[in-house]
Amino acid sequence: MTRPAWVVPFTEGDESMRELMGGKGAGLAGMTKAGFPVPPGFTITTEVSRAYFDADRLFPEGLWDEVATAISGVEQIAGKGFGELADPLLFSVRSGAAISMPGMMDTILNLGLNDDTVEGLAKLTGDPEFAWDAYIRFVQMFGEVVFGVPADRLRAVADRAKRDEGAPFDLDLCKTIIARLKDIVFGHAHAQVPDEPKGQLRLAVAAVFDSWTNRRAVDYRRLNGIPDDVGTAVSVQAMVFGNAGQDSGTGVAFTRNPTTGEPNLYGEFLLNAQGEDVVAGRHDPEPIAALQKKMPDVFAELAEIARRLELHHRDMQDLEFTVEHGRLWMLQTRRGKRSGRAAIRIAVDMVEEEVISREEAVMRVTAERLEELLHPVVMAGPDDELVAEGLPASPGGATGIVVFDADEAVELAENGAAVVLVRHETSPDDFHGMVAARAIITTKGGVTSHAAVVARGMGKCGVVGVSAIEVDYADQLFRAGDRIISKGEWVTVDGNTGQIFAGQVETVEPELDNYYDTLMAWADEFRTLGVRANADNPQDATTARRLGAEGIGLCRTEHMFFGDERIEAMREMIMAPNAITRADALAKIEPFQTADFEAIFTVMDGKPVTIRLLDPPLHEFLPRRDETVERITDLKLRLGHAKSLDKINRLLEEINEKETILTQIERLAEANPMLGHRGCRVGIAYPEVTEMQVRAVFTAAVRCSERGIIVKPEVMIPLVAFSTEYTQQEGIVREVAEEVLRYHGISVDYLVGTMIELPRAALRAGDIAKRAEFFSFGTNDLTQSTAGLSRDDSGRFLPGYVQRGLIDRDPFQSLDQTGVGELVRIGVDRGRETRPELKIGVCGEHGGDPDSIAFFQNAGLDYVSCSPYRVPVARLAAAHAELADR
Amino acid sequence: MTRPAWVVPFTEGDESMRELMGGKGAGLAGMTKAGFPVPPGFTITTEVSRAYFDADRLFPEGLWDEVATAISGVEQIAGKGFGELADPLLFSVRSGAAISMPGMMDTILNLGLNDDTVEGLAKLTGDPEFAWDAYIRFVQMFGEVVFGVPADRLRAVADRAKRDEGAPFDLDLCKTIIARLKDIVFGHAHAQVPDEPKGQLRLAVAAVFDSWTNRRAVDYRRLNGIPDDVGTAVSVQAMVFGNAGQDSGTGVAFTRNPTTGEPNLYGEFLLNAQGEDVVAGRHDPEPIAALQKKMPDVFAELAEIARRLELHHRDMQDLEFTVEHGRLWMLQTRRGKRSGRAAIRIAVDMVEEEVISREEAVMRVTAERLEELLHPVVMAGPDDELVAEGLPASPGGATGIVVFDADEAVELAENGAAVVLVRHETSPDDFHGMVAARAIITTKGGVTSHAAVVARGMGKCGVVGVSAIEVDYADQLFRAGDRIISKGEWVTVDGNTGQIFAGQVETVEPELDNYYDTLMAWADEFRTLGVRANADNPQDATTARRLGAEGIGLCRTEHMFFGDERIEAMREMIMAPNAITRADALAKIEPFQTADFEAIFTVMDGKPVTIRLLDPPLHEFLPRRDETVERITDLKLRLGHAKSLDKINRLLEEINEKETILTQIERLAEANPMLGHRGCRVGIAYPEVTEMQVRAVFTAAVRCSERGIIVKPEVMIPLVAFSTEYTQQEGIVREVAEEVLRYHGISVDYLVGTMIELPRAALRAGDIAKRAEFFSFGTNDLTQSTAGLSRDDSGRFLPGYVQRGLIDRDPFQSLDQTGVGELVRIGVDRGRETRPELKIGVCGEHGGDPDSIAFFQNAGLDYVSCSPYRVPVARLAAAHAELADR
Repeated sequence: MTRPAWVVPFTEGDESMRELMGGKGAGLAGMTKAGFPVPPGFTITTEVSRAYFDADRLFPEGLWDEVATAISGVEQIAGKGFGELADPLLFSVRSGAAISMPGMMDTILNLGLNDDTVEGLAKLTGDPEFAWDAYIRFVQMFGEVVFGVPADRLRAVADRAKRDEGAPFDLDLCKTIIARLKDIVFGHAHAQVPDEPKGQLRLAVAAVFDSWTNRRAVDYRRLNGIPDDVGTAVSVQAMVFGNAGQDSGTGVAFTRNPTTGEPNLYGEFLLNAQGEDVVAGRHDPEPIAALQKKMPDVFAELAEIARRLELHHRDMQDLEFTVEHGRLWMLQTRRGKRSGRAAIRIAVDMVEEEVISREEAVMRVTAERLEELLHPVVMAGPDDELVAEGLPASPGGATGIVVFDADEAVELAENGAAVVLVRHETSPDDFHGMVAARAIITTKGGVTSHAAVVARGMGKCGVVGVSAIEVDYADQLFRAGDRIISKGEWVTVDGNTGQIFAGQVETVEPELDNYYDTLMAWADEFRTLGVRANADNPQDATTARRLGAEGIGLCRTEHMFFGDERIEAMREMIMAPNAITRADALAKIEPFQTADFEAIFTVMDGKPVTIRLLDPPLHEFLPRRDETVERITDLKLRLGHAKSLDKINRLLEEINEKETILTQIERLAEANPMLGHRGCRVGIAYPEVTEMQVRAVFTAAVRCSERGIIVKPEVMIPLVAFSTEYTQQEGIVREVAEEVLRYHGISVDYLVGTMIELPRAALRAGDIAKRAEFFSFGTNDLTQSTAGLSRDDSGRFLPGYVQRGLIDRDPFQSLDQTGVGELVRIGVDRGRETRPELKIGVCGEHGGDPDSIAFFQNAGLDYVSCSPYRVPVARLAAAHAELADR
Repeated sequence: MTRPAWVVPFTEGDESMRELMGGKGAGLAGMTKAGFPVPPGFTITTEVSRAYFDADRLFPEGLWDEVATAISGVEQIAGKGFGELADPLLFSVRSGAAISMPGMMDTILNLGLNDDTVEGLAKLTGDPEFAWDAYIRFVQMFGEVVFGVPADRLRAVADRAKRDEGAPFDLDLCKTIIARLKDIVFGHAHAQVPDEPKGQLRLAVAAVFDSWTNRRAVDYRRLNGIPDDVGTAVSVQAMVFGNAGQDSGTGVAFTRNPTTGEPNLYGEFLLNAQGEDVVAGRHDPEPIAALQKKMPDVFAELAEIARRLELHHRDMQDLEFTVEHGRLWMLQTRRGKRSGRAAIRIAVDMVEEEVISREEAVMRVTAERLEELLHPVVMAGPDDELVAEGLPASPGGATGIVVFDADEAVELAENGAAVVLVRHETSPDDFHGMVAARAIITTKGGVTSHAAVVARGMGKCGVVGVSAIEVDYADQLFRAGDRIISKGEWVTVDGNTGQIFAGQVETVEPELDNYYDTLMAWADEFRTLGVRANADNPQDATTARRLGAEGIGLCRTEHMFFGDERIEAMREMIMAPNAITRADALAKIEPFQTADFEAIFTVMDGKPVTIRLLDPPLHEFLPRRDETVERITDLKLRLGHAKSLDKINRLLEEINEKETILTQIERLAEANPMLGHRGCRVGIAYPEVTEMQVRAVFTAAVRCSERGIIVKPEVMIPLVAFSTEYTQQEGIVREVAEEVLRYHGISVDYLVGTMIELPRAALRAGDIAKRAEFFSFGTNDLTQSTAGLSRDDSGRFLPGYVQRGLIDRDPFQSLDQTGVGELVRIGVDRGRETRPELKIGVCGEHGGDPDSIAFFQNAGLDYVSCSPYRVPVARLAAAHAELADR
């Protein structure tokens, strides 16, 4: 067995070698191969990082020989020598995993400089200021990245080297600063910054590898589902200098607009600067148009390279480039991150440009990107208080309470608060806080700053460079002119306009454009899985239809009981001493239910509507125990002060009534309501409830039919554990349905089926399907019961589980495919064995989760049902699942 | 296909035909075939009852032709004619299902009498009094059984025919009574008692069939797991008269004592009476010895028949016989019901008599019977108040509150009360109340009365014939001399002595005799399934060993935290703001835990002890919320009245402290604690807890080892849903265990394993077994999660489910084999696939349930673990399971 290469020169690799060379290395090799201007270099492969970790952080044997050979190759191309005094070759050292992880890993520039080579560089370039500046930057970065010295301490020293415009260069000051920086590093790490360039390289490579296990890198992998063991490559590339003078500069560019998708080069350029200055948002760059004005030839070359790269990669690219003394160097090309809107437009445009197929276009737009389009839009009016404006870095709108610290953002979010993270600028150390926040605001940086890139990557609303506001970390507030907003106050962030408002401003759904319509039409054409929505009222049903739902997969009837008059009748029903008074109370609710169903059927004309019979335990409809006790205490207190007999009598009457309610509350209280007297168990104990609901469904169906509306009710019996429960309730459903239809002489096609939401139901699906015409997997409850996790309570420890790596993802967000998923498969297989035509769907939250949808497609489900706003995501994910299957 | 026979004459059937002829019919046919004196007759088969119910209560075609033929056969043998005036043949009509259901079905005697035949009978016997008495009885029974006339109304009329000793026979009175009885029947049912004997027979047979669907019959089948569709047969047999004079009589006899098992004829005899008088306990019979004295020849014949029947059936028999004018007639033989003690002694004796094999002996003693031996024995002292004494009808001892009505007994028992049902006498209508009661007391009847038979059948403590007490249903109390005990007062019933005590008298376990030891030794020899006990303290462990446990399968450690000092330290631990103060609090608990484990290991010397790490959620260790709120309110009230500054300060301090606790209570409160932060989830959040417990286990193990005690700890990690949880906790367990053992330089064999108590764990058993050395199925929790049933809450509706036939049995009592059972099988199969030597047990309540044990044996488990007092039952059930497998 031949060992895979430890080192691959750019001249020998290509784009197909992503896994071995990482995205960055493979991209550079590809560009080199294609003849683009790329500074020479080589990649230390991901194999090395795996070997490094396997051997407890020891480099594998033979690595440094291969590195030496590769360096010679670069020296030949560049005509310089690594560590050579006269014409020193300098390197940049960067990480690059197979899957792009922007900003997550550390970079060292100017490697190879020391007290000797800096002199050579100064002499060679005739620019000692530039040379020493580079040296200072190197020591500073090396100290930070390799030895973990806090950046602020080093920067404070380095900043002293910056001179006022026109002040003379001071060599001694530079030497002092270098010495001081090295002292700080030694003091902090008890280790020297090596002078020997190869020693520098060894430590730098080790530092890149080590940064793989950084919290921020681990968090990013966790969030993006990247396995820990893919490892990272290290690209070592000859330095070119964007800060070599006014004929130099650095920039980043997208081949198309990453926010809108418009097909124009989009990006930023900074004269006389190194790339890190742009990415970190430390200087405010100019739009890419500045380059066109200042260096038209370079711009033209860049535009042509961009065009060719896009054609070559068949996708929008994210480029990094440097201009050194008027010569363009490409430092990176990679698939450009983009907003949902841009993703869709680019995909549709590229189909029209005949670059990609429609299938590819659909596959290209991830469900997460699409979802961004569905985020609410801030609807600010003249009365809303505009606090400040910045750059609209990531689309969407969000409201939350202000917080200034990432840890605090996490803490508050874990307690259920909506938070908006406000920072001067963000760094990878803030990553977990950005994950937790609803929106991100920074006062510095541009649309390619860390904050902007990360926010877009997460599809999270973000506004950057809001220079009008001044953050005061110490007092935990920010000022915008005279206006002061403190921690905990509400703000609304508009990621589409860059505006920031005080308070909670109304938000609405965005209009979806033609690009969206085109793409979704393609998706619908490809997908085989049906998509329905969970909707309990006509408004939600309308939204669902508008967003493309093909029916209602879950209409929860209990929400219908919560209106004022209804809840009263419901309580009467619960307090009823016998079936007759219970039926009387139910009779009061029935007209409301009938009207509700009629309205929903009307909206869903021609589409199936799955109606779940009453599911929650009855005690949910009673007042809260605490409230009732308090009320009784209060009444008794008032009784003590009451003077008139009339008043006393009235108080006594109310006390008596409340005490009766309290008795019932206590009688119905349950230790574990989730596993208690709910679902079909209520209908079995009180068949009048089932009867009333079914009568309402079919009376509504009859009325709609009479109005020419096509009604397809599907009556769903909840929480079945034993097939006998189903049979008992189904008997009532069919009996009442037939009675109503016979009475009106109208025939309506309807189905009777059940939720599969308990492990036992999945296991006994074969029995249940003997009579059930459809199954709908209630994966929320199925997850609760299968893994023994209460959704209401597990929030306390599940996030910790994800953090510790005990589980990959919260099983309530994305289906636990190996546990709950097996029960779904069992349920499907056994159900269909009994009844091959059994209609099967899912109506848990997972119905809107792309990974789960792929699973459901695979398991053979007929449809998924999700919340109305997730319907487009589900449609797209279903198309992906089908296309992935092909 | 030939249709099975509708009718089988006794002369043509035999004992092998139980299913077709019912137990009674097959027994009579068998005795007829063996040449015993049996009045001739025939059986209408169970096929007829099935056909009858299938055809909506219509008799199948051809039945009555076959009956007519059978009647002719009987007429020939008896030399009498059915409906013949001169020498009328009379029939008894009785039910008889394949499985004996004593007292559950109705009987009609003297069928064939009418205004004409009664005269013939009077003339033929020369005893008009006897003839008219028979006629009155017939009309009375017919009215009651066929037409459902309340028994009391008819009996009141019939009783008027009873004359004072020596008063002359009054024919007119008899005629008046007959007319009156017929009037009452007609008034009640608007139907005539037919005069035509065949018409009587048709209605009687229909009534027997109809009684199959009586509530009492349905209840009995439910309790005994008899399917509804086996149906009943009807035996029609020529009447013989035990009430034909002083040379006649009737009796019942067991071939051995059904309470003690002593090998002597045991029973009762009543001179000049019909069998129903004895069974209903309406007359007090004499012991069987009376027959020996009064009719020595008949007794000798009976004894010989008994001996032969027992040898023939190879089991103790329950006989019914009648003596008519000095001639013995056998009316029934069937397997005799017996107490647990008797069952064991009879089985062991019969092995010694070489009648049955040891395997058969073990199979003969059901687990339910054995369990009776393990019932508590009442330990009355001189201070206990003896209220009355009766016949010890069914062994055991029980305490409960007095109730006088079966329905009320059910109601109170459903609310968790222990009740003792007190009745004059019981009838099948009281059956459901007897099921619900802990003990049964009757003031009338003997040891073969309905109350006694049923109590023994259910293994329930019963005292009958307590003539010293007088029940007053109207005032809901009973009097014993001056002592009055009202409904709701406590009594203690001693079924071994027949004594009844006021209040709650101490009870203890019985001594187990040599017969028990012999049988259990055989059972242990046969069984392959291990039996352990669930024991949390040295006392339980001692009991467990005494009763034959081979180890502890579940030692719950949380109970150890509830001592006074411990709970305080536990609360300190829960309130601790950080890991260090938490560890401090735990350090206080550790010595207690260590001492507990040491004591248990000492008792279990040489046997494995499975220790489950902390399982309940932490909030269970905090005070109740209500109590704390109340306490705070109270303190604040006192603060208002406090005068001294010192006092105020002290109150404020306590208020502060309680409020801190309240905050923590509210923080830890859970919506569904069963699915909440418990089990290994606690150990993962607070590894200090796991560490402390493991240190205590191994420190105790070391101390025991040093004392020469052999320790086999098995550390069990609870509530694993994900294999990663197991791995994380197992890491801590092994690390701490090794540390302790290394420190002491002692080696201890130990295992680390897990509970399988969630569906996900069963499904992922293959992963978990990669590291787990043993599994223990926690079938309580597995039932809760699989069927979505909270054990604490489902008591409200599960009994209704059983009643409605939605489920056969409460799944917490007997394993739900098709649902939970499948997960057990999956867990076993997948676990063993990964680790063939995986040790697997069960430690839920089901570990002591015989049916469940058979399932576990079949599923391939290594052992079951149950509560100490159920260990013998489990040992026996395990032997049964193995023998059934052979």
